[in-house]
Amino acid sequence: MKKHNFNAGPCVLPKVAIDAAIEAIRDFDNTGIGILEISHRTPGWERIMKETADLWRELLNIPDNYEVMFLGGGASTQFFTVPFNLMGKKAAFLQTGVWAKKAAKEAKLFGEVEIVASSEDKNYSYIPKGYTIPTDADYFHITTNNTIYGTEIHEDIDSPVTLVADMSSDIMSRPVDVKKYGLIYGGAQKNVGPAGVTFVIVRKDLIGTSGREMPTMVNYNTHCGGEERDKSMFNTPPVFSIFVMHETLKWVKSIGGLEAMYKLNKEKAELLYNEIDRNKMFVGTAAKEDRSLMNVCFVMKEEYKDKEAEFYKFATERGMVGIKGHRSVGGFRASIYNACPLESVKALVETMKEFESMN
Amino acid sequence: MKKHNFNAGPCVLPKVAIDAAIEAIRDFDNTGIGILEISHRTPGWERIMKETADLWRELLNIPDNYEVMFLGGGASTQFFTVPFNLMGKKAAFLQTGVWAKKAAKEAKLFGEVEIVASSEDKNYSYIPKGYTIPTDADYFHITTNNTIYGTEIHEDIDSPVTLVADMSSDIMSRPVDVKKYGLIYGGAQKNVGPAGVTFVIVRKDLIGTSGREMPTMVNYNTHCGGEERDKSMFNTPPVFSIFVMHETLKWVKSIGGLEAMYKLNKEKAELLYNEIDRNKMFVGTAAKEDRSLMNVCFVMKEEYKDKEAEFYKFATERGMVGIKGHRSVGGFRASIYNACPLESVKALVETMKEFESMN
Repeated sequence: MKKHNFNAGPCVLPKVAIDAAIEAIRDFDNTGIGILEISHRTPGWERIMKETADLWRELLNIPDNYEVMFLGGGASTQFFTVPFNLMGKKAAFLQTGVWAKKAAKEAKLFGEVEIVASSEDKNYSYIPKGYTIPTDADYFHITTNNTIYGTEIHEDIDSPVTLVADMSSDIMSRPVDVKKYGLIYGGAQKNVGPAGVTFVIVRKDLIGTSGREMPTMVNYNTHCGGEERDKSMFNTPPVFSIFVMHETLKWVKSIGGLEAMYKLNKEKAELLYNEIDRNKMFVGTAAKEDRSLMNVCFVMKEEYKDKEAEFYKFATERGMVGIKGHRSVGGFRASIYNACPLESVKALVETMKEFESMN
Repeated sequence: MKKHNFNAGPCVLPKVAIDAAIEAIRDFDNTGIGILEISHRTPGWERIMKETADLWRELLNIPDNYEVMFLGGGASTQFFTVPFNLMGKKAAFLQTGVWAKKAAKEAKLFGEVEIVASSEDKNYSYIPKGYTIPTDADYFHITTNNTIYGTEIHEDIDSPVTLVADMSSDIMSRPVDVKKYGLIYGGAQKNVGPAGVTFVIVRKDLIGTSGREMPTMVNYNTHCGGEERDKSMFNTPPVFSIFVMHETLKWVKSIGGLEAMYKLNKEKAELLYNEIDRNKMFVGTAAKEDRSLMNVCFVMKEEYKDKEAEFYKFATERGMVGIKGHRSVGGFRASIYNACPLESVKALVETMKEFESMN
């Protein structure tokens, strides 16, 4: 049976990237050696590293005064790496979920943390508005997409201080005005690759502004300094994860880049949200204006609450994978990242319709 | 042409692990979803995480009062993570190469560092002996195998203070008396897997002994605390790298575990060192008693120095890959890690003999 992969991350990747990964494990770059077994100092690999950074620059239109890095340790490692590098005395946070809260917690080790607004009062089901960003903060941190709750900041906001964004779960889903941000980071395992690699895009003049002494691996300068831009080769990089990222970004480019990706993502999300709003049995959990294009969260309406397990079983039997909602929200969550095909969204919508007609 | 992979890491892996990796990318655990696209919260993956830790425990005979973790960021990240967790005021280091030196440098951020001995005077071509380990140090740090220089500490040393070892390049190559160590860490990309995952084995009572406040991701407790031992699932782990580690360790077990592995490694190293010592054109660079079983470093004898490029070309034409020595040593380095077949070592020896007979 055909499976429809709605996992929240790691998640579905483009088939061409998967095929290229398998081929590279057999033989990388016609060397007779597989990608898991090559030295990261071979010219073929150095080319992939450069091409990967170049694809980031091209797709996101990253200005020249920004560095691009590929590191290990996940976005959670950036939660403390960012303040180590950028925070003098104070940082401000928009608390839109537990990941944003975790990021703020790590910054507290380095100085004052101001939560400018939080949606914790309603289980993070909306994005707070009308808050004031303190001008004495070294930076203002946002989480652009909240995987667990299905909310998303849809526009590049204006900030009077350096804007830092965790874009783990919506990077490359739409065009971004990078110059509005000082730093963008995230784990790759949603839209840009498998688990095991973290991206960091940072405006050069911000590096070292905290004035702190810090471990070599924590210092952004270690990974991007010198004449060879975007190197990320101070130590052995997560080679294979970066390779799959390279292939995934090539696919994004092949379908027309981020404008085309965005159009497709809006189409998929609209299809699914429309069905949630139409179907008598389901209701969305996120505030409508803040609905994520990546993670679609919904529950059974009060009168059908007892049908939840039944729908889960029904959908699973039809090949839907990974649609169980996060325990803190309940119900269902369909993650429809870049590589999730329209066909899978249609299959889920059909399943919801069928289930409605049976009830 | 058959390639013989002598890369220093990432390096050759067991063919069965490579085949299993390809199969898992197609379909993991009969789920219909590939390993790059599964959720790390699926039961099948949680089983692999547990089995991987269990394989570590079984192969190395790790006592129950130790934790096993799989993290991102490479051994270089452990250079500062270890002192963050274990160093109160002072740490001692045996400086056997640039990696040992780098580890010591990171510890300096946290207090006093004593270099008990260094072989830098002779380009790290030997392991210092007869040094005194200060009893007021929180721990004594060694690098058991020095990839660049081809030296290795062949025995588990006795230390009056907690012994910490970077075993990046000889872990799983021989049985280790784990209880002599407080902490063992290393990057996977030599003997236990591809790049992208780092192992940490730590005696439980040592965790938190530094008394330092530290970032959540840096704190070992984050990755092993609670009732579910060896979890390493605080954030998304480097799934695929751990999977290949799992398959690599299964292979080590299948050939008879570390006693059998050690026997094979000694056989391979002896074959190659014997040829270096016999051949009129080559000479080993490391002190004989400290010669590494993993990285075999050799140069042309003085009278044949002008033949170096010629031998490199000659060997490359016969399928030898990755035998160029590190720039700081020059000449040649054949890394003959666990998965390097005896057949490859024999092919290299034959190549050296042929070259000798031509000159």
